[in-house]
Amino acid sequence: MNLRFTHETLPQRVVFGPAAEHLAAEVARLGERPLVIGRAAADLLPGVPRHREVVMHVPVAVAERARAVTAGIGADVLVSIGGGSATGLAKAVALTTGLPIVAVPTTYAGSEATDVWGLTDDGRKTTGADRRVLPRTVVYDATLTRSLPADLSIASGLNAVAHCVDSLWAPRADPINQALALAGIRALTAGLTGIAARPDDLAGREQTLYGAHLAAVAFASAGSGLHHKICHVLGGMFDLPHAQTHAVVLPYVMALNAHTVRPLLAGAFGPDGLQGLRDRIGAPRALRDYGFRDSDIPAAVAAILPIVPPGNPVAVTGGDLTDLLRHAWAGDPPGDQR
Amino acid sequence: MNLRFTHETLPQRVVFGPAAEHLAAEVARLGERPLVIGRAAADLLPGVPRHREVVMHVPVAVAERARAVTAGIGADVLVSIGGGSATGLAKAVALTTGLPIVAVPTTYAGSEATDVWGLTDDGRKTTGADRRVLPRTVVYDATLTRSLPADLSIASGLNAVAHCVDSLWAPRADPINQALALAGIRALTAGLTGIAARPDDLAGREQTLYGAHLAAVAFASAGSGLHHKICHVLGGMFDLPHAQTHAVVLPYVMALNAHTVRPLLAGAFGPDGLQGLRDRIGAPRALRDYGFRDSDIPAAVAAILPIVPPGNPVAVTGGDLTDLLRHAWAGDPPGDQR
Repeated sequence: MNLRFTHETLPQRVVFGPAAEHLAAEVARLGERPLVIGRAAADLLPGVPRHREVVMHVPVAVAERARAVTAGIGADVLVSIGGGSATGLAKAVALTTGLPIVAVPTTYAGSEATDVWGLTDDGRKTTGADRRVLPRTVVYDATLTRSLPADLSIASGLNAVAHCVDSLWAPRADPINQALALAGIRALTAGLTGIAARPDDLAGREQTLYGAHLAAVAFASAGSGLHHKICHVLGGMFDLPHAQTHAVVLPYVMALNAHTVRPLLAGAFGPDGLQGLRDRIGAPRALRDYGFRDSDIPAAVAAILPIVPPGNPVAVTGGDLTDLLRHAWAGDPPGDQR
Repeated sequence: MNLRFTHETLPQRVVFGPAAEHLAAEVARLGERPLVIGRAAADLLPGVPRHREVVMHVPVAVAERARAVTAGIGADVLVSIGGGSATGLAKAVALTTGLPIVAVPTTYAGSEATDVWGLTDDGRKTTGADRRVLPRTVVYDATLTRSLPADLSIASGLNAVAHCVDSLWAPRADPINQALALAGIRALTAGLTGIAARPDDLAGREQTLYGAHLAAVAFASAGSGLHHKICHVLGGMFDLPHAQTHAVVLPYVMALNAHTVRPLLAGAFGPDGLQGLRDRIGAPRALRDYGFRDSDIPAAVAAILPIVPPGNPVAVTGGDLTDLLRHAWAGDPPGDQR
């Protein structure tokens, strides 16, 4: 028997369209006393109470205050409007209250399509997966991503590309989440090309948002692969910016896993591949542009090596990781590294 | 805004692998007192009570007896083992009891991945969609499909192909269910080619079963399109065999909707298309081989015309349907009909 896997499909209602038109009705399906969490799109849901204290990585104290506000007004449905931090805060409230979430993302981070939550306490991050934090409904309105400048849109979209690619070889990769990941890569390739060519054009942002949704679904299902382990260490130890780090590192990890990923990709990036896309859209190129130093490489390698996923398609040595990080630091053309 | 749709993803746990190895553990996750429904694979779950009275189209009296047996033994989980009729009977019990279902399909019918139920009373069929009848877990074991002869496997697999293709233009078609449908077409094309070449080879049956799962997920999400409306009338009025009718009619409906379906397909059937696949696998070719007469065509057209989905990509006239059925009756080469 060749086909052996277990796949869990998570339930979610997804609405693509104008939030001004759909959001109130979607919220009303789930509750009567909504609380909005987040600062973005201040004109959505006028008259509904709003909690604006959103902080990156969801500090526990911030979550506690949001929970107190939720209890104080007797909210029965949470509406997150914003990027990953707003979604993350709503998840922190849902984790202890069980309240349903309607998520309205304004970036391509993808948290809205996963059951993963995270909290930080004194700089230590705790994460987990819990069905209660999966937003019941997501309203995707590409016009809300227009406030994201083109360069940040491209970094955020490449972070979504990394969700797709890492899904292809992640621990729970299977034909179903691989199919979703490939559809995500096609949409993101088209969408990011569109954003770079015409930053104010909605079509590119719509395709990117759609691709980011598929990316998050695939990634939540397949789990973290080598790429995310590397970026997790770089972000945590050296405080590098999240989306840009993913955008720089991805092609080097792809080169390492090339013999597995090439046949799976089957041209999903188009005829000139990820590198062609990166060239077209002016992708972030080198970790040294974001505060990483070549002298950081040995410590990074030491931290990454023990968490390399055992199921990675190729065995990975310290030497491989040193080479990978040196190329990523310098922004060398990412060739096939073996 | 170009991208406007609402997509509901249904939750389901799917296990591909040997049922002998996985089924007992999957059942134990959901209950302690299982009842097996169906006659197939008698060696699975030895010692567990089994209800064997399974009848096509689930007559109400048969459903009532299965419900009585379920209550009598105090079952808390249903295990359907068999084709669409066994799954359908378990769904009829779940509809009134709310009990969870573990489905073990032995054909490519796909009912196990949908929330659609059906009951017949005095030959009248009632159908509906209810979240309670969606099997919580499906165990797909391709060895169990070996009892299906090659010609029936091909007809059943082409029925799954029809689920995919009809999903592309169905009323709730969206980019997500279209992506699943295309992945289904690719798997079914590979799988059916394999079954036809080597009927006892497991690899083809695995791919076909996997493709049939995607087909059912896509179809449950997208709804019935023109193809299924036509086949529903042919099956109901003229008692034609289900899978074979779908297998014959599909290429003619594709020809009618060609200008929409061709760009979406993007080569999913491979370089020689559906017709090449049909030729390779010896697909059923003509409705007249299955009891349909050319004198039946006017009555069929009269019944189909009022239920043509308003959103079909092209407007459909009585003349179009007459031509389509005449070609399908004769088994003419299905060209582009407009």
